Amino acid sequence: MVIQLERSVRVFPQPDLLNQVLTYTFDHLPLQRGGDLSPVTLAYETWGTLNAEGTNAILITHALTGSAHAHDVFYPDDCKMGWWNPLIGPGRYFDTTRYFVICSNVVGSCYGSTGPSSTDPRTGRPYGMRFPVITIRDMVHAQHKLIEHLGIRHLAMVAGGSIGGQQALEWAVSYPEMIDKVVVIAASAALTAQGVAFNEVQRQAIMVDPRWQCGDYAPEQGPDSGLAIARMLAMITYQSEEAMEMRFSRKPTSREAASSPTLNPDLGGRFDVENYLFHQGTTLARRFDANSYLYMTRAMDLYDVSEDYPSIEAALSRIRSKALFVGIRSDFLFSAAHVRWLANKVHLLGGNAKYVELDSPHGHDAFLKEWSQMTDALAQIEL
Amino acid sequence: MVIQLERSVRVFPQPDLLNQVLTYTFDHLPLQRGGDLSPVTLAYETWGTLNAEGTNAILITHALTGSAHAHDVFYPDDCKMGWWNPLIGPGRYFDTTRYFVICSNVVGSCYGSTGPSSTDPRTGRPYGMRFPVITIRDMVHAQHKLIEHLGIRHLAMVAGGSIGGQQALEWAVSYPEMIDKVVVIAASAALTAQGVAFNEVQRQAIMVDPRWQCGDYAPEQGPDSGLAIARMLAMITYQSEEAMEMRFSRKPTSREAASSPTLNPDLGGRFDVENYLFHQGTTLARRFDANSYLYMTRAMDLYDVSEDYPSIEAALSRIRSKALFVGIRSDFLFSAAHVRWLANKVHLLGGNAKYVELDSPHGHDAFLKEWSQMTDALAQIEL
Repeated sequence: MVIQLERSVRVFPQPDLLNQVLTYTFDHLPLQRGGDLSPVTLAYETWGTLNAEGTNAILITHALTGSAHAHDVFYPDDCKMGWWNPLIGPGRYFDTTRYFVICSNVVGSCYGSTGPSSTDPRTGRPYGMRFPVITIRDMVHAQHKLIEHLGIRHLAMVAGGSIGGQQALEWAVSYPEMIDKVVVIAASAALTAQGVAFNEVQRQAIMVDPRWQCGDYAPEQGPDSGLAIARMLAMITYQSEEAMEMRFSRKPTSREAASSPTLNPDLGGRFDVENYLFHQGTTLARRFDANSYLYMTRAMDLYDVSEDYPSIEAALSRIRSKALFVGIRSDFLFSAAHVRWLANKVHLLGGNAKYVELDSPHGHDAFLKEWSQMTDALAQIEL
Repeated sequence: MVIQLERSVRVFPQPDLLNQVLTYTFDHLPLQRGGDLSPVTLAYETWGTLNAEGTNAILITHALTGSAHAHDVFYPDDCKMGWWNPLIGPGRYFDTTRYFVICSNVVGSCYGSTGPSSTDPRTGRPYGMRFPVITIRDMVHAQHKLIEHLGIRHLAMVAGGSIGGQQALEWAVSYPEMIDKVVVIAASAALTAQGVAFNEVQRQAIMVDPRWQCGDYAPEQGPDSGLAIARMLAMITYQSEEAMEMRFSRKPTSREAASSPTLNPDLGGRFDVENYLFHQGTTLARRFDANSYLYMTRAMDLYDVSEDYPSIEAALSRIRSKALFVGIRSDFLFSAAHVRWLANKVHLLGGNAKYVELDSPHGHDAFLKEWSQMTDALAQIEL
């Protein structure tokens, strides 16, 4: 087994520069919607050690603006330093003393993997909007190449939430014989019309920013305002009316004022919720690439587990792994009802499927916040 | 009683030019948030005849992008020609053979009333963002001046939905002795943090459009793309996951393709829901003023019935009229729970309040769609 140890160049800064990000580059990836991508680099991180039989590997799949940095070995207790930190590490659910845990940044993203900000070998310039349409299935096929490259024949588990949950589901359908267990969190068989609609508004907000330049912006000169507005809307869909009411209600802002995406003065004061969203928006604009945001949200929209199969039953009945589906009571992006429906469908098709629901007010983002409930939910599928 | 009969100049085109829009101009309006507006013109329409005692008048209050044209006498059966057509007319709930029905365009709007696109007398140019912050209470105070001008001492009813519902509630609190009955539909005591957040995203989308020009755009050269994006988001909040799923699900578009707000090509096809929202967005951009949209959505955010009173109880206990509150099961902008809470609060304070819920999947917009349920709901408060 050869693991390339050169350190990847991170296109966008991460909070931590101490953990080792590895990369694997392969020649080409045929794409679900046509064409191919060549070459393809995936950035990834691993924790723990692969056993001699190569049977103790777990793949963790990340959400829209996530990276391979699910866990931080130097700051294992800081949720901001590794996005699934409380679930990964010695003695934790993803126990790094027993398992070889891998998290790979997906194709299309901007955290070291090939995406729209990567150099297009045909032109020597960034792909921009000449990057091909990529799908969740493409992301999974690329991850599969990485897993093979790491000498892993079998995954003990694939687990992820949101578009990470879509990837986990796709793994179970695309490579049924290869994975023992799958955990699909806050993701369904396909996004709703409302979800697609929210994503399209976000994309339009990016593209209306004059700095977008049809995707051909220079580094550091991208459509930060548009991307911040997109993020503001996304943050609403990741939370819930209930959670926002608890946290912000109608309080005027009391903290240090954040810059609004468009830098225009407030009209009749500023509510705390607005200040919070401005902060979230401008923070994302500093760390994420706008074109990646367009492509990644589109992959989320386009995902339909039944695509290219005669029916959804045909797709889901391919699943051989033990499957845990986790819904969130207050999620309105991938509602609990849709996750439950999916779990039930797999069960009715003879699959080994279990459904657990987080009783959280925190909406879609609960899988990145409710550590105790998440640990209890994961315990429903023994590792 | 003198009613000015000169025809108003409509700043923005309306589907119908046959009905008579009247205007009333008065000298000045002191504003809740400071300053005043001078002069002030209100565009309004009336149907039916005021009786000799001046006791059969009803005021209908409109929603965000509505106009005074609630009813069309030439096309009384076409919902697109008058926004509350099926409820107004001979033999209908708002029976124009018995009542003198008035609908006034609000201050801040662009349908003939003084708003940001009106000429600022101090400069001879449109107000733009020099227009003062206006509130729901300001809108109601201006309507009150109109009602007095029309020689009406007492209103048999004030009724409206959404920000029209906020106006109706404000009428009942500001002028308790003056109105017999009030109908508050799909509106609450104050918008939620989530509702404010959705509105702020819409405003940012308008302001990021380079054609916005800090509000100083020439007529016909406004930020149409930004306004269209704002409308796309608003339309999602006016509907529901359930209704969008029924109507669009994940169907690719089959109708004639609408232009996207930013005119950029689709990324991997177009869903029907996207095409629908593009159409809705570009249609609004042709008929509405972007600065009015900023000010009107802000008035919606800022409304809190308890403002300037010691408590919400102090405000609501002022209500003397018989009150009907109408919630909508699937509304997620002004949720049924919040409308029910308000009705219950008024009831507990000794008010004559009734709550009815529309069992509709159509979300917030149900009060502009569910004619049979609306008629049944209104029947709960006899006119």
